[in-house]
Amino acid sequence: MRTEPLYGSVQADLTLVERTFETLRNVEYPPLAMMLEIALGGGGKLLRPALALLSGRFGKYNLEQLVPLAASIELLHTASLVHDDVIDNAATRRGRPTANSAFHNSTTVMLGDYMFAHAAELVARTDNTRVVRLFAQTLMVMAKGEIRQDLTAYDSRQTVRDYFQRISGKTASLFAAACEGGAIVSDEPEEWITAMRDFGFNFGMAFQIVDDILDFMGNEEEMGKPVGSDLMQGTLTLPALLLMDERPTNPIQEYFARPTKERLAQAVREVRDSDVPEESYAMARDFSRRARQAIEVLPDTSDRQTLITLNESLLERRS
Amino acid sequence: MRTEPLYGSVQADLTLVERTFETLRNVEYPPLAMMLEIALGGGGKLLRPALALLSGRFGKYNLEQLVPLAASIELLHTASLVHDDVIDNAATRRGRPTANSAFHNSTTVMLGDYMFAHAAELVARTDNTRVVRLFAQTLMVMAKGEIRQDLTAYDSRQTVRDYFQRISGKTASLFAAACEGGAIVSDEPEEWITAMRDFGFNFGMAFQIVDDILDFMGNEEEMGKPVGSDLMQGTLTLPALLLMDERPTNPIQEYFARPTKERLAQAVREVRDSDVPEESYAMARDFSRRARQAIEVLPDTSDRQTLITLNESLLERRS
Repeated sequence: MRTEPLYGSVQADLTLVERTFETLRNVEYPPLAMMLEIALGGGGKLLRPALALLSGRFGKYNLEQLVPLAASIELLHTASLVHDDVIDNAATRRGRPTANSAFHNSTTVMLGDYMFAHAAELVARTDNTRVVRLFAQTLMVMAKGEIRQDLTAYDSRQTVRDYFQRISGKTASLFAAACEGGAIVSDEPEEWITAMRDFGFNFGMAFQIVDDILDFMGNEEEMGKPVGSDLMQGTLTLPALLLMDERPTNPIQEYFARPTKERLAQAVREVRDSDVPEESYAMARDFSRRARQAIEVLPDTSDRQTLITLNESLLERRS
Repeated sequence: MRTEPLYGSVQADLTLVERTFETLRNVEYPPLAMMLEIALGGGGKLLRPALALLSGRFGKYNLEQLVPLAASIELLHTASLVHDDVIDNAATRRGRPTANSAFHNSTTVMLGDYMFAHAAELVARTDNTRVVRLFAQTLMVMAKGEIRQDLTAYDSRQTVRDYFQRISGKTASLFAAACEGGAIVSDEPEEWITAMRDFGFNFGMAFQIVDDILDFMGNEEEMGKPVGSDLMQGTLTLPALLLMDERPTNPIQEYFARPTKERLAQAVREVRDSDVPEESYAMARDFSRRARQAIEVLPDTSDRQTLITLNESLLERRS
């Protein structure tokens, strides 16, 4: 089991989501099976599927619909990571690391398409067109967020507001869809569906901010990626933007002007030594507080407590 | 109007499909609007949407479902063309031309994802989960076909059978889905749904074979792409495979061994001067005949006649 004890009453049911993933790898075309093995192999913490299942606990908890939905959300997430690995010559030159360097760009694109298609097929198994539309609209919003990230790379005119818009599309929208979708297929009242969506959205915002803080503050070994990898890709995240706001001349613009290892290390060091991490955490806490407030309308059950605990623990994660 | 008089009773309704495409370009994020303009701008002959609408003429012809379905199929097709334009360094070196050279690879991927998502959103508007699943499964099959094409590039061990498998996934599956989908949303009897799917599949096979013949035989100006472009990308199509079958030493393997302009021109010339084009046309005619046979079970209406005429005319197209 790759899951955490954190997931309360849905812990055991996540095995069904994992089983769905296993059948997904059984394709009769060996090269594709091998590629799926690599793309899905690492496995995640199944946080998004857990949220989808937990959100369904406040209505008819129907696993025949919730498991395909939860698997679909996780697959959509994994597919988007695969497409993130498609690189440009420019990006390679900037030293961008890629997970799927085993495949060519064009094959990586088609592998991601296959995974998106499979995710769509899974969500269609819920037999609920409202959830299918939610799924499609979420993918549209995510793609728009990724385009924004791409087009604003290395652009130091962007603001914290632009950043929030970007991560709301890129990350928070999928957390929101996981929670909203779980509530929809479980036939919960509209007020609760809205509450779950707001919870997921704010949870996702806080989650991404912490992710972006850890990219500066984290331990390379725990995270499995180099410190400062966002800057290496030209992505300006909250800590970088706050530092740039505070200092008219700063090491980030110097790094973008001439990207060397030393300048990157200097930029990371200056962020670490500033108030910026604490300011960023304050913003993450703010979103996390809104997430908690959103589910106050839900009945006070152990499942709501699990959601609250997950929401608190995201602020403490180290990788 | 970009459509052809060929489309009989659905000709006028294709305007509704075009209108759907126009609203699709109205996004509030200007860079995305601009990219969609470029990607959708050229416009096609709307052959796939026309087939979807015509297939719906044998049941309840309900435009509220058929128009989103038809637009979805065309958008799926266009999105797959966008993803085809993602290139590898190796491919660039082989001189592969790309339509979207205006964008970076990573942006092209996200643009295609956005279009796929929008296509999924359109198909969900039919409110018919059977059609949504058909859509998702078709995209899976298409992606698998593209992966096959990618992994067999420059591989001279492949057979005509491999080729048929490849194009059935890459091309025929979408024609089949257009026709099957139209019949499903129009609530036609299962026998007719199967007939429409078989028609679309065989039509699509013939269509792709003719496309691959024209890549050798066509006129560059009419086609808007260089003659021999498949070989340039390492893709072995039916004419190339038949020539390789007939001649133990042949100019195609020589071209792959050392790709020069002269060797490409020589390979194209040898295909043109051989019996291979006629043999390939014979195979296309065979699929076209099967398409015609498939719809013999349908009532003998003017719409069936339109399908028959379209099926015949595909063998005569020049671009």
